[in-house]
This record gives sequence, structure tokens and C-alpha cells, in this order.
Amino acid sequence: MAGGKQDILHSIFYPRSVAVIGVTESPDRVGYCLLESLIHAGFQGRIYPVHPRLKTLQGLPVYRSLEEVPGPVDLAVIGVNQVATVDAVEQCGKMGVKGVVCVAGGYREMGDEGLALEDRLIATARKYNIEIVGPNTLGLINTDAGLNTTFYPLRLPRGRVSFVCQSGGVGLTIIHKAVDEGLGINKWVGVGNRSTLEMSDYLHYLAADDGTAVIGVFVEGTDNARRLVQVAGEVARQKPVVFYKVGRSGAVDFAAQTHTGSMAGSYAMYRQILGQFGLPVVDSALEMVAACKALALALAPRPRGNRVGVVTHTAGPSIVLLDEVSLRGGVFPGFQPETLEEIKAVLGENPAVVVKNPLDAAGQAMQAHPFGRLVDAVIADPGVDLLVAIYCPHLHWRCPTAELLAARQKSNKPLLALYIASQEAVKEERELLQSRGIPVYTTPEEAAWGVAALLHYASRQGGEVQ
Amino acid sequence: MAGGKQDILHSIFYPRSVAVIGVTESPDRVGYCLLESLIHAGFQGRIYPVHPRLKTLQGLPVYRSLEEVPGPVDLAVIGVNQVATVDAVEQCGKMGVKGVVCVAGGYREMGDEGLALEDRLIATARKYNIEIVGPNTLGLINTDAGLNTTFYPLRLPRGRVSFVCQSGGVGLTIIHKAVDEGLGINKWVGVGNRSTLEMSDYLHYLAADDGTAVIGVFVEGTDNARRLVQVAGEVARQKPVVFYKVGRSGAVDFAAQTHTGSMAGSYAMYRQILGQFGLPVVDSALEMVAACKALALALAPRPRGNRVGVVTHTAGPSIVLLDEVSLRGGVFPGFQPETLEEIKAVLGENPAVVVKNPLDAAGQAMQAHPFGRLVDAVIADPGVDLLVAIYCPHLHWRCPTAELLAARQKSNKPLLALYIASQEAVKEERELLQSRGIPVYTTPEEAAWGVAALLHYASRQGGEVQ
Repeated sequence: MAGGKQDILHSIFYPRSVAVIGVTESPDRVGYCLLESLIHAGFQGRIYPVHPRLKTLQGLPVYRSLEEVPGPVDLAVIGVNQVATVDAVEQCGKMGVKGVVCVAGGYREMGDEGLALEDRLIATARKYNIEIVGPNTLGLINTDAGLNTTFYPLRLPRGRVSFVCQSGGVGLTIIHKAVDEGLGINKWVGVGNRSTLEMSDYLHYLAADDGTAVIGVFVEGTDNARRLVQVAGEVARQKPVVFYKVGRSGAVDFAAQTHTGSMAGSYAMYRQILGQFGLPVVDSALEMVAACKALALALAPRPRGNRVGVVTHTAGPSIVLLDEVSLRGGVFPGFQPETLEEIKAVLGENPAVVVKNPLDAAGQAMQAHPFGRLVDAVIADPGVDLLVAIYCPHLHWRCPTAELLAARQKSNKPLLALYIASQEAVKEERELLQSRGIPVYTTPEEAAWGVAALLHYASRQGGEVQ
Repeated sequence: MAGGKQDILHSIFYPRSVAVIGVTESPDRVGYCLLESLIHAGFQGRIYPVHPRLKTLQGLPVYRSLEEVPGPVDLAVIGVNQVATVDAVEQCGKMGVKGVVCVAGGYREMGDEGLALEDRLIATARKYNIEIVGPNTLGLINTDAGLNTTFYPLRLPRGRVSFVCQSGGVGLTIIHKAVDEGLGINKWVGVGNRSTLEMSDYLHYLAADDGTAVIGVFVEGTDNARRLVQVAGEVARQKPVVFYKVGRSGAVDFAAQTHTGSMAGSYAMYRQILGQFGLPVVDSALEMVAACKALALALAPRPRGNRVGVVTHTAGPSIVLLDEVSLRGGVFPGFQPETLEEIKAVLGENPAVVVKNPLDAAGQAMQAHPFGRLVDAVIADPGVDLLVAIYCPHLHWRCPTAELLAARQKSNKPLLALYIASQEAVKEERELLQSRGIPVYTTPEEAAWGVAALLHYASRQGGEVQ
């Protein structure tokens, strides 16, 4: 289906060339930063800045109009105001550009006059078979293509999680939290007013996208919640989808309407529909990142059930984890006799340890080697579907990173690490672990959110736990 | 009351001299690290390592026994096993040492035999009027005194928040999250088995402690929830107290019992009693740090009510904040006519902005100067009790840090900043803002938790909103 929505979306995410309409010389202005973001992100295709009078900008030749651009343009990023944007889209249509990002706001979120302007924008797009990201959007990012069409110059770690966000600001929050957590991003889009491209269009695209292993969706509200969730439910059969829906308080409707022109819609209704389609729901940007991290790194193969094993030398965090995971449908079974034997072989008949799950071996598990042996014993337990290793890194003591990596290789069960430390202190170990399929968390609650996401996509239930 | 619990607690938190009983040469061992932690934290009093054979350790002379220590000892940190610990406490008693930290576990959390041993420990302490931190504890930290009796060498930023934790591991989680967030710690204690010192004793001490402005409490369970909460309620009349109680799932009782020998107790019962005494409850270590940060930095003077104003250039995060804060009793009033005039004076009659609260001025508030003028206008609104400024830092654009600091100085209302960025990127601005009374958050949910904590301690209600 050449020229279809999905083909155009592909050329939007993987353009060979990008025109930036509305560049300026002032670094204070959006037009300057749109161009800089592209360069900064390492985009390797052709970049064509367009401005009626400038000659060069940021080392690139500037073209007076789209007509003067010397080659085909796959994507036009339009940084002019809302009225001029409509004309620019018309120009794009005449020049055969099929994909555009419209940054300016001032459309249907602004009442009748804006609505009329947006209708003109849509009519123009339809006339030329153009697809619009936005308007009223930060645009999109694709680390696979070194592409960043937002006016925020960013260098993001490349990874396998993609996000569809009905808010640029919340989307940026998620991105930055992901950076803090060492979680790589694949694609990201702020959907804006969704003039021609619905959230479900992006979901369909990401479902077929090889670079994307997990999709996170932030929703303020849509006119057709059922349709969106139904599509997400279909997509979730191929790869995990995680939803974050604002509006638990019921106080957000007006604010959302003046933002993206959408009612937030009843949160309870969303929750219900999401439940029907077996989709996991998170309650914060923090939980979104924790859940996506686990799903991106530790879901191959999927856990076979909801039975969690824990090994630690510090009980408190394991109790918090137990509490959070239990609230979300996980269970913590007792160990099999052969596992108990293995544990005793490590610990001896030590009276200072009660052998149970979570297994807190206290001082006996502070060193990496015995800790690793306990992990080996518990992850091999046939009654355990996934394991969480909880360790407090210490100035002198080697973290059980090598042991966890070895256990992960030997086992076909997901393994998560909770390293209780500051983000900075844990950075190197985390990089090592996360590059080889072990998500690392620094708080028990976030680790629990990661576990819950994995349990939700456990294989035995076709995607539904709760 | 010389020699009373509180006097001894003071000498435990501010010892002039510390003996470490059970030091070793091996950095792998707890005994080595107990000594190193003291040195590493910059303790300026006398440090006396005690070991029967070693001559020197980490540059300090080692004494063969407590008897040979050449001066009075205010605090003994005991790193030997649970049986030897009882003898060491006996020695302390004979030498007149009144404060001890007992690190080893293996007492009542281990069943009848351990219970009998703990009874001996308590009897010994009673005989000599000794107060025990622990046993089965990481110990305590006091950044005011350069004191760290845990076996985790740490250098923590000094601040005004203190924590009482019924779990060393959860306490460490809170500490590290505080470090990530640039939040300074004052005192910290892992209460362990509470043989002679109850959580309420620490609360009383911290209530009278000048260095402590805010107290965070993590609870697994106590035999007498009402007594603990009642004391906390009394303390909360002097300074804010925040509670984190594990056990929402009801699945944690056995785990908690084998950890600190306490039943977790009914979460619902705790919630109810905490509500009766008007104490705020958080649901995660993340929320604990977010709440304590706001209370430590932005509660002078207290907000006069629960009316929140928001200024931003990005609507989505303001909607998430609105949602979270509304769930916790905050309201977002419309602005007064004079405020609307002021806002229009900044924005002009621009049709791309709907003037409402939260105020999203989009592109017009991306630069620091107009952003600051909008903050000035909204914080001056007589209908607004506190303000949240939401800004996405940009590679080129100056953050409105100077403007926020100026607004904070002019106003007697709490001002919180949500800077949407990675922790690393926001570090410098955060340090500046937080050093002058403006807590900085990087996610809207955490900012909302901070706001909710402040509203809870709003002045009009004597500490109760919800």
C-alpha cells in the first residue's frame, strides 16, 4: 500500500531527507533549535533548512523556499506559526512531501477560531495525501535513525522501548527518567492534536517496527477510548503495551480539553476497557519507566507464571517488594525440598537465617560468591517463575554482578536486580547488567513495578494476570 | 534527668568518643567497615578500635579490651556475633558506657532460643542503665556530628531531614534516593529489634533536636501502633512527621515477623490511627523523599490553605500534577481579576493561550524572563496558597532559576519547581534552588507528592487536610 498511512509513517520515522521550515538565527527561538536537534542527534540523511533570506545556518546552506530544495523531501518539520503552518503544508503538498511535523499550537484547543483553522489544515493535508504529526506537538524521535524533530536537542541512549505520548511534556519526563535509569529509547512521538494521525496509527506502526520491543502509551483522553484500547490490545499480542492514563481525580477534564482539545474521559471507563483487553495500567511516569525497563530487557523468554523468588541480605526491601508485587497479583511460594537442600549447602545449619521466600541470608549473603550460589539455587526452583536479587552495594565488596550474569545465562527465567544505591554509584554495574538482560532498579517499589509488568505478560495467561 | 533515655540518646547521636568492638583487618568484614565508616564520615571525636590481638588498624591504635581504652566512651559500636554481643554489653556496663549499637542479628526474630538471648541482652542493659540501638540493626548516622556507625561507609549531604527506619535496607533506599534528589540528611537510625529504645523514643529525641526540621518514619509493624502514632502526633505539632507503613497487601506479616520480630499489623488499622492523629502517609520510598524534601525546604512559612497555582509552558505535566494533587485534597482555583490583568500584561491579548490555572503560556513562557513575570503574577494572587513552576530545561535557554529565587524572596508562600530533565542535567540549578528554599522535582508525580505534604501541614488546619 504505497502512499498509505503506514508507508508515510515509515518515511516520517526513517526519512532520507528532512526540510526544516522556519529556521532562524537566534538560538532562543524554536526554529533554530529544530535544526540543531537534527544535527545534534546525528541525523545522517540530507537536512534542508528553509528561510526566505538566510544564506547559511549552523554550517548548512539555507534554501529560500521548499521549491529551491535540490532533492526530494521525505519529512518537513514546520516551525512557523499556526496560520503560516497551513500555507507551509500547502507548499509541501505541491512539492510532493507526504510527511510533516507541525509544531505550532493555536488550533482546536483554542476554541472555534482555532477549530476552523485546524479544519483548513486537515483539508489541505487530505488534498495532498499528507500525514501530519501534530499540530501542537514536540514532534518525534527515532534513535535508530538519529532523528529528533523536537526543538529540544537531546542525545538519548538507543534501546528497544518506544513511546506514544499525548503530551510532549509528560513524554519528556518519561524520556529523562529513562535516561536516569539507563533505559534506551527507540522511538518517541508526541501526538499533539492528532489531525490526521491517531494514537492507534502510531501503535500499528510500532507493532510492525523491528526496533520496538515494548510500547508505552500516555493518554490524556480520546473521543474513542474503546477503539484505541482495542488496537492496543491487538498490538499487545505481538509485543507488550503499557498504558498510563491521567485523570484518576476527575479534576482534569477542563485542563485536558484546553491542552489537546480532548476530554480526559472517565478514568474508570478507561480502566475497565483496558482491563477487558488485558492491558497493564501504570499510575506514574516512574512506574511507566520501571515497567518498560523490565519488559524491554527481561521478557525473553516470558515467565511461565506469577511465582516470584527473592534472594537478599537485607529483609526490609524484600518485604516492601513482596507487598507491592502481592498487590499486583504475584505470589511468593515456599521453596522445593531440593532448593532448601541447596540453600543449606551454602549457609550451613546456621541459626541466624530463617530459610523462606524471600530468602534473607543476612551477613552470609553480603559477599558476591555465596549470594550468587543462593541465586543459582532459587532460580532453579521449579516453583519459581522469576527471581529478584536484592543487594546493597558496598564501597569494598564486589557486587554479585558476575554471578547474576552467569545465573541469567544458565536459566531461562527472568532475573531482576535491585541494587540499593544512588543512581550515580550504580551506573557501571547497571550498564553491564542491563546490556545483558537484567534490569536494575534502585528502589524496591520500582523493582516491584517491573516484576508486575513481567507477570502481566507471563506466557501462561496470554497477557493477563490481574 | 541526667542518665535518662533522652540524655543517653543525645550522647549516642553526639558522642565525644566511640569504641568499635570487634574490628578486623579484612575489608570484607563488617568489623573493618564499622571503623572505616566512622573515619570516612569525618568523625572528629576520639575513635577507639578494640581487638584482643591487633596493634593498629586504619592508622589508629587498637586497644585489647574496653578496659584499656584511655578515656571515657560515650558510644560503643559492637560488631561481634549475637552471643559475644551480650558479653560486650556487660563489659560496656562495667566501664560505664551508656550507649551501644548492637549490629548482630540472631535474637527474637529467630524464635525461642533467640528470644532468650535477647532477654539476656535486655537484662544486661537494664542492670547498667544502658540504651541499645538495635540489636539487628545497621545503626545510626548523624551528619551534624560526622557520625556513621553503619558498616556502609557513606558521605551524605548534610541537611535537615531525619529518618527513623524499622529496616536498614529500606532506610538505605531512602538515603540513596535523597542523595539522588540533592536532599540533605540530618540524622538516621535503623531501629532494629528495639530492645530498649522504641521508635517513639527516637521520635521524642528528634522532636527536641535543633538539627531536625522534618522526620520520616518507616514502619514494618509494632506491638502498639496507637502508642507510636500518638507520640508521632504529638511530635507533629512541633515539626512535620511523615509515615511510610508497609503492608497494604496483607501478605507481609510472616516476612516482617522473621525480620524484626514484629507483626506488620493491620495496614488499615494503622491508616485509621494515622488519620485520627492527622499524620500524612506515603506509599513508597520515592514519595517519602519527595514529601520530606518539600517539608524540609518550603514549609517556612506554612501555606495558609490548599489552593495551588501553576505556571508552565507545557500543559501535560501540569495536568498530571493537577490530577495527583486533587486526589490528595488540593484545589486549583481560578485567578483573581488583578492577576488576570497582570498575566495579560505579560502575554498580550494572545489567542494561543487560554488564561486559566494551571497557566500554560506555551511558547510565550519558554524564556526565563516572561516565565518569571508570570510566576510573580500568580504567586501574588490572594487566592493562591502555594505555587508550582513547571519548566523543561533546554540546551540554550536559561532556566528561570534567578526568577524563581527572586519570587521566593518577595513572597511568603511556598514555591516548588518541577524541572523536567535528567537528574544529572538539573543538578546545578537544583543545588542553587534547594539551598534557598525551593524544592526541585523532575517528575510531576513527585512534585505533586511534595505539594500534598505541604498542604497536609498547611497552617489553617493545624496539620490536617485530608
